[in-house]
Amino acid sequence: MKPATPTDAAESSKILKGKWRRRGVGILDFILRVVAFAAILAATIAMGTTDETLPLFTQFFQFEAKYSDLPALTFFVIANGIAGSYLLLSVLVSIFNILRGHAAITKVVLILFDTVMVALVTAGASAAAAIVYLAHEGNSSANWFAICQQFGSFCQQTSGALVGSFIGALVLILLVVLSAFTLYRRNPPLNSKI
Amino acid sequence: MKPATPTDAAESSKILKGKWRRRGVGILDFILRVVAFAAILAATIAMGTTDETLPLFTQFFQFEAKYSDLPALTFFVIANGIAGSYLLLSVLVSIFNILRGHAAITKVVLILFDTVMVALVTAGASAAAAIVYLAHEGNSSANWFAICQQFGSFCQQTSGALVGSFIGALVLILLVVLSAFTLYRRNPPLNSKI
Repeated sequence: MKPATPTDAAESSKILKGKWRRRGVGILDFILRVVAFAAILAATIAMGTTDETLPLFTQFFQFEAKYSDLPALTFFVIANGIAGSYLLLSVLVSIFNILRGHAAITKVVLILFDTVMVALVTAGASAAAAIVYLAHEGNSSANWFAICQQFGSFCQQTSGALVGSFIGALVLILLVVLSAFTLYRRNPPLNSKI
Repeated sequence: MKPATPTDAAESSKILKGKWRRRGVGILDFILRVVAFAAILAATIAMGTTDETLPLFTQFFQFEAKYSDLPALTFFVIANGIAGSYLLLSVLVSIFNILRGHAAITKVVLILFDTVMVALVTAGASAAAAIVYLAHEGNSSANWFAICQQFGSFCQQTSGALVGSFIGALVLILLVVLSAFTLYRRNPPLNSKI
């Protein structure tokens, strides 16, 4: 049997280091996906359960506020619901990848879906933010009145949901960049031209 | 001089093919950036020049509609302005890359900025869409009235701007995926695990 040379030892240490780096990146990917999932699930539930009825009623105003009364908030719930389901699925993929390793093309597919989800979550959150802002501030030019004086709890709950959703979008952006960086480090001729 | 063997010929044909593929991808990247820039520039101008004054005035209603009256539309102009400036800059980077080639890390940086721009453009477009939808349809639950009967031209112009902006966001998503795919194809052990 040939004894191990220093070169062999250096080589195997390099391979081991690479393996642990990949596993570390895999675990980071998993943690980020869990965080994004939790934030978006919380946002969906917070928005989906808004329903405030005031013990008053006049001829001109309906004193009930619910997310489904406003199309932008309904879209928020749908968009975050889709993104949450996707993230749950991708958490499972992430676990599988940590345990088994995966083909590099998986990262390209994840970048595609993660980027679409960035757009979907941001779209839902921003559309809802525009409406929640209007509910808080009103708009004198369009003669739209603020409704948050009446519906304080509704406005608080929707604002909280927005925060969760924007955190989810931010974490999704980090996931895209992490995947891109993993692809970049895959075969390390670091200064290679492409 | 050693005559070229069939293996040498195959090797050099492969290198040449790789070079042309890279150049093709570079040109596609350039075209997509120009399309995104044009769409977002048009959207910014369309929204930024909205200003409709009706020849009527009553005690209760102001009959002027301008993008700066609505914070969501102002945000649309700012977000698209930033994205447009970034895209103009990235078109120049793209030209440089076609002519000179570039380090792979550039693609990671482009993916980062492109993804942030996807979020920014989508945020602006969705916030504006929520408000433009409200202007068209109104909302009886919140007692917000539609204003598009009065401000037809304003509503038409803002709706057009939305289309341009969403096209820009879509092209930006394609750019992220193209960059990811370029990183993936960089060193082609296609079934390598990462």
